[in-house]
Amino acid sequence: MKNRKLGILGGGQLGRMLLQAGLDFNLYTLVLDPDEHAPCRFLCEEFVQGDFKDYETVLAFGKRCDVLTIEIEHVNVEALFELEAAGVQVFPKPSSIKTIQDKGLQKEFFAQHSVPTAEFRLMQGKEELEANQDFLPAFQKLRRGGYDGNGVVRLSSIADAGKAFEGPTVLEKLVNFDKEISVICARNTHGEVKAFPVVEQVMHPEHNLVDYLLAPAQIPYKLQRMAIEIATHVTTALDMVGLLAVEMFVTPDRQILVNEVAPRPHNSGHHTMKANATSQFEQHLRAILGLPLGDTEPHCPAVLVNVLGEAGYSGEAVYEGLDQTLQEPGVYLHLYGKKFTRPYRKMGHLTILAPTVEEVKQKADLIKNRLKIIA
Amino acid sequence: MKNRKLGILGGGQLGRMLLQAGLDFNLYTLVLDPDEHAPCRFLCEEFVQGDFKDYETVLAFGKRCDVLTIEIEHVNVEALFELEAAGVQVFPKPSSIKTIQDKGLQKEFFAQHSVPTAEFRLMQGKEELEANQDFLPAFQKLRRGGYDGNGVVRLSSIADAGKAFEGPTVLEKLVNFDKEISVICARNTHGEVKAFPVVEQVMHPEHNLVDYLLAPAQIPYKLQRMAIEIATHVTTALDMVGLLAVEMFVTPDRQILVNEVAPRPHNSGHHTMKANATSQFEQHLRAILGLPLGDTEPHCPAVLVNVLGEAGYSGEAVYEGLDQTLQEPGVYLHLYGKKFTRPYRKMGHLTILAPTVEEVKQKADLIKNRLKIIA
Repeated sequence: MKNRKLGILGGGQLGRMLLQAGLDFNLYTLVLDPDEHAPCRFLCEEFVQGDFKDYETVLAFGKRCDVLTIEIEHVNVEALFELEAAGVQVFPKPSSIKTIQDKGLQKEFFAQHSVPTAEFRLMQGKEELEANQDFLPAFQKLRRGGYDGNGVVRLSSIADAGKAFEGPTVLEKLVNFDKEISVICARNTHGEVKAFPVVEQVMHPEHNLVDYLLAPAQIPYKLQRMAIEIATHVTTALDMVGLLAVEMFVTPDRQILVNEVAPRPHNSGHHTMKANATSQFEQHLRAILGLPLGDTEPHCPAVLVNVLGEAGYSGEAVYEGLDQTLQEPGVYLHLYGKKFTRPYRKMGHLTILAPTVEEVKQKADLIKNRLKIIA
Repeated sequence: MKNRKLGILGGGQLGRMLLQAGLDFNLYTLVLDPDEHAPCRFLCEEFVQGDFKDYETVLAFGKRCDVLTIEIEHVNVEALFELEAAGVQVFPKPSSIKTIQDKGLQKEFFAQHSVPTAEFRLMQGKEELEANQDFLPAFQKLRRGGYDGNGVVRLSSIADAGKAFEGPTVLEKLVNFDKEISVICARNTHGEVKAFPVVEQVMHPEHNLVDYLLAPAQIPYKLQRMAIEIATHVTTALDMVGLLAVEMFVTPDRQILVNEVAPRPHNSGHHTMKANATSQFEQHLRAILGLPLGDTEPHCPAVLVNVLGEAGYSGEAVYEGLDQTLQEPGVYLHLYGKKFTRPYRKMGHLTILAPTVEEVKQKADLIKNRLKIIA
């Protein structure tokens, strides 16, 4: 632990909460992000403004680190392979990131490793859509660069060809599902694996972001075990070191299908900062630093509400209703250090705790709309 | 909350954990500390190297803040009065700090407000000791500047005069006590008060520091209620805004006497970072920012072990036994970002959680000596 230099590719809110947890481990931290206003700007020993997608930039940055990790998967993976070969501890490993950052490779990996997932086809370009019209309706997903619902479009039939993406994409069969759940697993450098309990996501009907998250997921115990087994299997198969967030569907016939995975801290684990003694951020650090993993047992049921910029407002953020939100017992605010708001921008989250699932849901319904971010 | 500038006098570990909690509130933070290696150095927007005991330095620093707080009470209080008059929100109020930073005024305040405390006498200088020999055996305490057992000496009789302090001191009757306990109270700008549950301290026999802390204190319910009532009374009487740590003795005849108070986050509350959903640091921020106070209920019993520099070692710190410490479930490490160790220096703390008091004590005994800080 003596003066270990931890580099993070990406300086957004995930990096910020990682640095927040990292304070407890006396790390010397460096962050690379193109945005001079990045939320991590003032929280690390060295902030390097630069593009984490650029080979030379990542290489130069990584050479200054003992351990290099990511808070976003869309990074230059060639530079990471180079750094790994040069003896830098890159976690997650470049090979894991390479598979995951390309949704096509990710799906092929699932197929090769018997991970249950929706049927899919790969397309080199939009011109192949006609040949695949038998596969519609389907989601078309960009193989690279998508995030938070961006880079995904629903194609009902060939008539939707106009809104289809150009370039390499994945066509994915629509899945009929009852619930979206996720499991965050950690695997450390020694191969120890621990999973956080299953959480249940509710999507906002308008903007395609997680609106509301409930832990523990309200699904039968058998399905919880199955979800954790699948997530553990994917984590090990991918040779992950660090966190893997595994998003899954529960189908009406009680099957579980993996939707997609992210090799980093994840929105669906933010409640662990308050509801579990080990947060996902501490767990990621323990994993990549080669420390024993922490307990993942929750203290109590929790709801996580993303705090998004109000529609119709852009500019310097103003928080309305903070007092009314926090006056309810068991409500905790986490803001991400973003000066400017815009519609649906993730500005922070609320964690709500209560002794029972029923109470926590009631409390969530009561307070989730009290806080407004305007400009 | 929009761009509020929070200044902190002192950049040690308490300031560091305050900044860590403060990330969730999007504050713009400034820290004043004389040490260029202060643990807060890289965690605030602006680090000002300077003396918080110096009038001009504190005045200049404070004028740049909207809200000014402290992580140490030995600050220039005249400058704080000046800043308060100039409209800066200084919390705790300068009048509260002034009373507390002088152990003589603190004891007189207790007497005036019917706060049970050990008998005492004030001395202007060592030459008054002879006239007070009827009061011995007693502890002699420096009125100002003492910390962590420094500035306290036990005088059994006039024969000990050679080791007595010069200058203004308090003579305090020895108290026969069964247990040392403490209660941390918060009071916000609106006068709302909340107390954390009572904790029990065990002192290390050699170096006069808290060695081991147990929450909840193993004392009868009636005494717990009494301790919280006394702490709440002192907090309100002192017109505190922020945290007040109230250290108390439980006597063999089941009385509670206040030992001393500190107007800031306190070592005896560090376990709240893991064992309670609201940590003492978040609570202090809620209090001084005028937000509703958070829940103080614990999730489970906890033990806090201070991680001190090993005797006989000075220099760049090396951590031995980290793996063996963290491999036990429910054990959490918090290091303070100090590069150099010296004998008994507070380098961090361990929090140990378990479902029952018995289990948490067993686990503490098992692991508390596994981690060694050498050089």
